[in-house]
Amino acid sequence: MSDTTRDGLFPVAGGGRRGRDEQALASAAEALRQRFGDRFQTGLSIREQHAHSTTYIPAQLPDGVVFPESAAEVQEIVRIAAHHRVPLVPFATGSSLEGHVNAPFGGFSVDMMRMNRVLAVHAEDLDCVVEPGVTREALNVELRDTGLFFPIDPGANASIGGMASTRASGTNAVRYGTMKDNVVAVTAVVADGREIRTAHRAKKSSAGYDLTRLFVGAEGTLGIITSVTLRLQGIPEAIAGGVCAFQTVEDACNTVILTIQSGPPVARIELLDALQMKACNAYSGLAYAELPTLFVEFHGSGETVAMQSRAFAEIASEFGGTDFAWTANPEERARLWKARHNAYWAQKSLVPGAAILSTDVCVPISRLAECLVETQADIAEHGLTAPIVGHAGDGNFHVGLLFDDKDPDGIERAKSFVARLNARALSMDGTCTGEHGIGQGKRAFLEAELGPALDVMRAVKQALDPHDIFNPGKIFLS
Amino acid sequence: MSDTTRDGLFPVAGGGRRGRDEQALASAAEALRQRFGDRFQTGLSIREQHAHSTTYIPAQLPDGVVFPESAAEVQEIVRIAAHHRVPLVPFATGSSLEGHVNAPFGGFSVDMMRMNRVLAVHAEDLDCVVEPGVTREALNVELRDTGLFFPIDPGANASIGGMASTRASGTNAVRYGTMKDNVVAVTAVVADGREIRTAHRAKKSSAGYDLTRLFVGAEGTLGIITSVTLRLQGIPEAIAGGVCAFQTVEDACNTVILTIQSGPPVARIELLDALQMKACNAYSGLAYAELPTLFVEFHGSGETVAMQSRAFAEIASEFGGTDFAWTANPEERARLWKARHNAYWAQKSLVPGAAILSTDVCVPISRLAECLVETQADIAEHGLTAPIVGHAGDGNFHVGLLFDDKDPDGIERAKSFVARLNARALSMDGTCTGEHGIGQGKRAFLEAELGPALDVMRAVKQALDPHDIFNPGKIFLS
Repeated sequence: MSDTTRDGLFPVAGGGRRGRDEQALASAAEALRQRFGDRFQTGLSIREQHAHSTTYIPAQLPDGVVFPESAAEVQEIVRIAAHHRVPLVPFATGSSLEGHVNAPFGGFSVDMMRMNRVLAVHAEDLDCVVEPGVTREALNVELRDTGLFFPIDPGANASIGGMASTRASGTNAVRYGTMKDNVVAVTAVVADGREIRTAHRAKKSSAGYDLTRLFVGAEGTLGIITSVTLRLQGIPEAIAGGVCAFQTVEDACNTVILTIQSGPPVARIELLDALQMKACNAYSGLAYAELPTLFVEFHGSGETVAMQSRAFAEIASEFGGTDFAWTANPEERARLWKARHNAYWAQKSLVPGAAILSTDVCVPISRLAECLVETQADIAEHGLTAPIVGHAGDGNFHVGLLFDDKDPDGIERAKSFVARLNARALSMDGTCTGEHGIGQGKRAFLEAELGPALDVMRAVKQALDPHDIFNPGKIFLS
Repeated sequence: MSDTTRDGLFPVAGGGRRGRDEQALASAAEALRQRFGDRFQTGLSIREQHAHSTTYIPAQLPDGVVFPESAAEVQEIVRIAAHHRVPLVPFATGSSLEGHVNAPFGGFSVDMMRMNRVLAVHAEDLDCVVEPGVTREALNVELRDTGLFFPIDPGANASIGGMASTRASGTNAVRYGTMKDNVVAVTAVVADGREIRTAHRAKKSSAGYDLTRLFVGAEGTLGIITSVTLRLQGIPEAIAGGVCAFQTVEDACNTVILTIQSGPPVARIELLDALQMKACNAYSGLAYAELPTLFVEFHGSGETVAMQSRAFAEIASEFGGTDFAWTANPEERARLWKARHNAYWAQKSLVPGAAILSTDVCVPISRLAECLVETQADIAEHGLTAPIVGHAGDGNFHVGLLFDDKDPDGIERAKSFVARLNARALSMDGTCTGEHGIGQGKRAFLEAELGPALDVMRAVKQALDPHDIFNPGKIFLS
């Protein structure tokens, strides 16, 4: 960790050039073994399970994995790590997509999956308190009898702690917001081993700095989250949805813009490009038109979803959309969404044996069509195979880039494509990541996006984690 | 400013025991005069206009007031203040309610009202970029022809910069959220004089720490906001509203809970207690029942607001509410809401000549009835006059405490009441302020609410403002 000063008065937070301190790592491992016994593991296969990047960045293994079962145990782990000044990498389902769980400087993976209790459900207040290892699917099973649900759906059955840490969102963020909007408070163990609570359970507060939002999206670099208080939603009385194809990406995007602007409050509005539709047809044995297609869903009462579906159909027809056949029948809806939900596997099947990089950017929706068209041209020009799926209502899209991860040239071509994609999004007033986070993969693009604001982030990191124990080498290049 | 270390590893941010450095203040004043000429003023009356607490805390005047007209000028002001290590207190409309604009250690008020341009309106993206001195009413006038509006309405015609800095909300936060939810990005001048941008214009982002939310609610203690990017909403096609009285506060609160839980997406749901209704009748010459009363509003299409109004009427009748006569007629609605909008002046007229303290707390809505009933009992027991108006859908309410600010005993009784009110809210898992902020008045209650998390906030303050130039003496007791 360097103490030198950059431009201006803010210090440099550590990370990039940190080395491995073998002596400290060995001493910390011994302390963890003594305290946690069998719940501290150093076998190769368990370390491999806890480190992967899901990118072209190689896996970087931790020196061991510890399995706490309570906040008090997390405090003990942090105190051991702080004493020896060794890295801790919080881990849950491992579904992050930018190398968040790699351990570039060694240290210890803190596996939170044994902290998986729903601590409280306050149905009248539409909130609940959960430990970080609860997955979103497990939470919704637990909530089944309350008439409530937790709406954020990033695709994977991710943990709530991980979703908070990467500021996750997904298909229905357009209606229910992201983790930023749905986390009421967290408790977290900070660098001195104390557990803090960022807020009480009131629905809103103006009480000091918004530490809740500071921990949401901090990717485990400021402390380890030990509980999350979440907002819940009433399960909609009715859900209606349908599929609509367009001749061009522009027509589909203009339909999205007018829908968002003029009103029918859409719960999901997903855009799949022609190649993605082709992949879905092949993978799931479907016969959709291989054209840019919107998958749309409305939540409300039986009357309102019918009204909203009709309003959407009118807008879509203005832009040449095919007949919007919507349905409120659960089985028909499930069939409809099967193609969308299998998008990732369908992508993979396009090039058997290829690796897949799922990368995301997000732009103002007025620029979405332009960004998509330029990206498709880029893909064609460079002879890549890369279907696109977007959370179009948020201007957020994912490119599923198929590449050969055994071939250095294949990796270089993938890297260059990602660099061009990010430069394009930033030039359109967008962001280098709408929902995947920075991790290791997007650090240079974050610098390009926010410039001097990064020094403010570094100052926060340095202040809250002066010995750089929490997930070093993430978010910041150096 | 102290450099001692508290419990744990986090440093103490300055503020509480800071003194006046007369030499530094004189030198900084001279530098500001040379640079800004007539736009730097030191007359008593202008200094008085820029310092007041709207509480029982006496006014504490700045040494001068400077009127920047651009972000570059704000940078010059910050560099002068940083060089001489003197305080800067950002100021706009001065409508804050907890002593935010007082200057307890002297220094200079930075009046942002000349930075009042709407810099851009992006209608397709439902956002705009404004300078901090734009008021919410001026913004909505400017937006008139776009079909869009900015929904946050804290009552006063506050500035956007001030609303961002106090994390303001108001009557329709229950539908549209607070400033936390409606600020996309800010630019701000930080302690080293650089201007940072916290985010681009994409609707969502997972790019690093959420500096936007760190500046929203920071009360000018981390830097001076120079522009705000705001989310906008489509003006609803139809608005319907009405008034409904209940025999008890519990019945009114249960109506609110079931409304929030079961669905009709209410845009405003305001609770006025019996004393407030009496004051409104007297002040505005109305004849409402002097009972706990809900004022309700729905936004949507003509069809949906009618459906929602009927659904609400059914819920209200379950809890013994009077017939809910709703109307979508603009004149009738204006008449309805006149009583609510004049609540503050109606409060004042209850005790001619008295001072009024508007204080707020916020609790989970399941505890709102209990908190209100206990607060009314407290008011009665202590012989106080204090009508209550609440943003009931958020569990947030305001007590308009009438007291004699010339009488030390009157001030003491007011202070004791506020202390009991806050202890009560905190004991119910609530917050000491739902929307007014901490300023000077709520600092002790913030300590009580968040405990060790305050040390994390202090570490952030110390890291971003090491010489404690930005609004010292606010948020933190010491």
